[in-house]
Amino acid sequence: MKYVSVEQQTLQQFILDLLRAAGVDEQEAPIIAQVFVWSDLIERSTQGVGRLAAYLKRLSLGLIQSPCRPEFSQKAETIYILDGHDGFGHYLGHLAMTKAIEVAAEYGVGLVGVQHSNHFGAGAYYVQLAAAQGHLGLATSNSVPNVAPYGGITPVLGTNPFAFSAPVRDGQSILVDFSTGASAGSVLRKAIAENQPIPAGIVIDAEGNPITDPQAAAQGVMLPFGGAKGFCLGLLVEILSGVITGAAISHEIASLHKNFERSSNVGHLFIAIDISKLMPVEHYFERMDLLIGFIKSTKKGKEVAEILIPGETRWRHYTQQLHAGIRLELKTIESLTALAKDLKLATPW
Amino acid sequence: MKYVSVEQQTLQQFILDLLRAAGVDEQEAPIIAQVFVWSDLIERSTQGVGRLAAYLKRLSLGLIQSPCRPEFSQKAETIYILDGHDGFGHYLGHLAMTKAIEVAAEYGVGLVGVQHSNHFGAGAYYVQLAAAQGHLGLATSNSVPNVAPYGGITPVLGTNPFAFSAPVRDGQSILVDFSTGASAGSVLRKAIAENQPIPAGIVIDAEGNPITDPQAAAQGVMLPFGGAKGFCLGLLVEILSGVITGAAISHEIASLHKNFERSSNVGHLFIAIDISKLMPVEHYFERMDLLIGFIKSTKKGKEVAEILIPGETRWRHYTQQLHAGIRLELKTIESLTALAKDLKLATPW
Repeated sequence: MKYVSVEQQTLQQFILDLLRAAGVDEQEAPIIAQVFVWSDLIERSTQGVGRLAAYLKRLSLGLIQSPCRPEFSQKAETIYILDGHDGFGHYLGHLAMTKAIEVAAEYGVGLVGVQHSNHFGAGAYYVQLAAAQGHLGLATSNSVPNVAPYGGITPVLGTNPFAFSAPVRDGQSILVDFSTGASAGSVLRKAIAENQPIPAGIVIDAEGNPITDPQAAAQGVMLPFGGAKGFCLGLLVEILSGVITGAAISHEIASLHKNFERSSNVGHLFIAIDISKLMPVEHYFERMDLLIGFIKSTKKGKEVAEILIPGETRWRHYTQQLHAGIRLELKTIESLTALAKDLKLATPW
Repeated sequence: MKYVSVEQQTLQQFILDLLRAAGVDEQEAPIIAQVFVWSDLIERSTQGVGRLAAYLKRLSLGLIQSPCRPEFSQKAETIYILDGHDGFGHYLGHLAMTKAIEVAAEYGVGLVGVQHSNHFGAGAYYVQLAAAQGHLGLATSNSVPNVAPYGGITPVLGTNPFAFSAPVRDGQSILVDFSTGASAGSVLRKAIAENQPIPAGIVIDAEGNPITDPQAAAQGVMLPFGGAKGFCLGLLVEILSGVITGAAISHEIASLHKNFERSSNVGHLFIAIDISKLMPVEHYFERMDLLIGFIKSTKKGKEVAEILIPGETRWRHYTQQLHAGIRLELKTIESLTALAKDLKLATPW
């Protein structure tokens, strides 16, 4: 596979120009561009600028609204619900986590649920907003059902991501963001598109038999990760993101990629916990150093080069690509070039 | 294996008598007895009355204190830290979750961390306290390291349980309580004691090779469940329960079963979220009914009798044993009989 390297600021400006040209609101566009490009910076490219076209298609169909006129309603000192009026999930997620951080800074904990939203990209982006301000951050989202419950063979939960972060001294926070399905939906779609064999234990057919053929996988159903425990965690994400926020639940959600008849009504939940309320931040950092030291000094398994702290690889990509440019796959370049042509914009390549 | 059936009230009174005779504080003993017996009621017997002797041994050595004079300090409107002064984890957990529920009823969310505690038994007990009052409940605890990090072969995290619950209309809440290791520590110890082969993927030896021989498993190291994701979740539990509460972290924790030189200083975290702040409770129940209906109506895999909602089997045991008596294994009966003899009490059998 070939890549094209694009300087970060150049890419972000180009994405911003595309969003504006597509009619995205002036206030929303810079934040949306930032979330997309950040995902590429950490090399979570399946949630990056290569997916922009899918969102702009929904925008042009009126299934995503911009401006969306987001509306907060306060439910308790520490709880807000944000009605996103079908806006970009990236914008609404940023807004909601920012509010959760504000609330936590006052009361210790802040919880913000979002309804009438759309797919928010990489949950890691939102939790690192919290970590950057000295908070623990948690972000969850439900999504269109493609994961079977434990024991079942038809889908009922989405890949329902679970993301959290915890600040560390050097600013490169612990960063966790995983699908509660056996694979991220976007990662599976990529493997299918590239015709790569699918490992057993990820997708099953209508009879419950494992699928490894990528051509058959698109019609398959995903299993939860880690058996019953992964299903339980996916269910927690559905309750947090869908049930208690007032958003759509399970089969009520419309697919980003397949359903062009109604808006998605995805739900998200964001929680921030202000660490400085619990102990002096320096003391917290010492305690995290101790824990990370314990983890780093465990004995490595055969053929394991290094014990990694969650997020460590992501931050290495981030630092490297911030300086040396962001590597974009050729098909991402093609997709953005096509968008630019439609919107009568020049490309930076 | 043979069982003896004991009526619930009889068992609870007997456990209470044993605790009192062992010198446990009058105020603490009824709560501790209740937590132990509840675990047996839901047939989570590895956290039930069969383990009482291990705790009373630590009590007699002064490593568990009773009365423990628990001390709350308020850190923010929604955050408290409970210094447990080496008290019973069962008592402190009950106290802490009760406080988290109170705080949530006022502010929407309540978060209570516990330090200087001991092993709290089954996390499910604490989260159902929250669910019974109409709250979402989350409970975590760290524990002595016996789980390797992803890629490692020596232990750094405990089996660090993750528990949550969500109320449902009939009162039998969704109940999740799992080890973030590939097995619960107590379940593995039981398999070893009964000389049952250990499935691959749970325990490894000093070289990282799988152990299936129960005689070798006691010296092995546990893997996280579900690979890297399970490790991430175990790390979250350690940060929530250990780092931010001020309790011991990882190797600082003393083992309940093996270290008789110092107190455990285990940490826990409890979060309650008051659902009634978010929407009318009847509306919430309707939404949960919808989700549960979706799950129940998924197509079953071959040889799967029923798609189960997390907690469903536990509540069936609960209802059944509340009426027909609690089944105790013979070795549990023997252990309690020995305790009764030492404490000069009559047994109910």
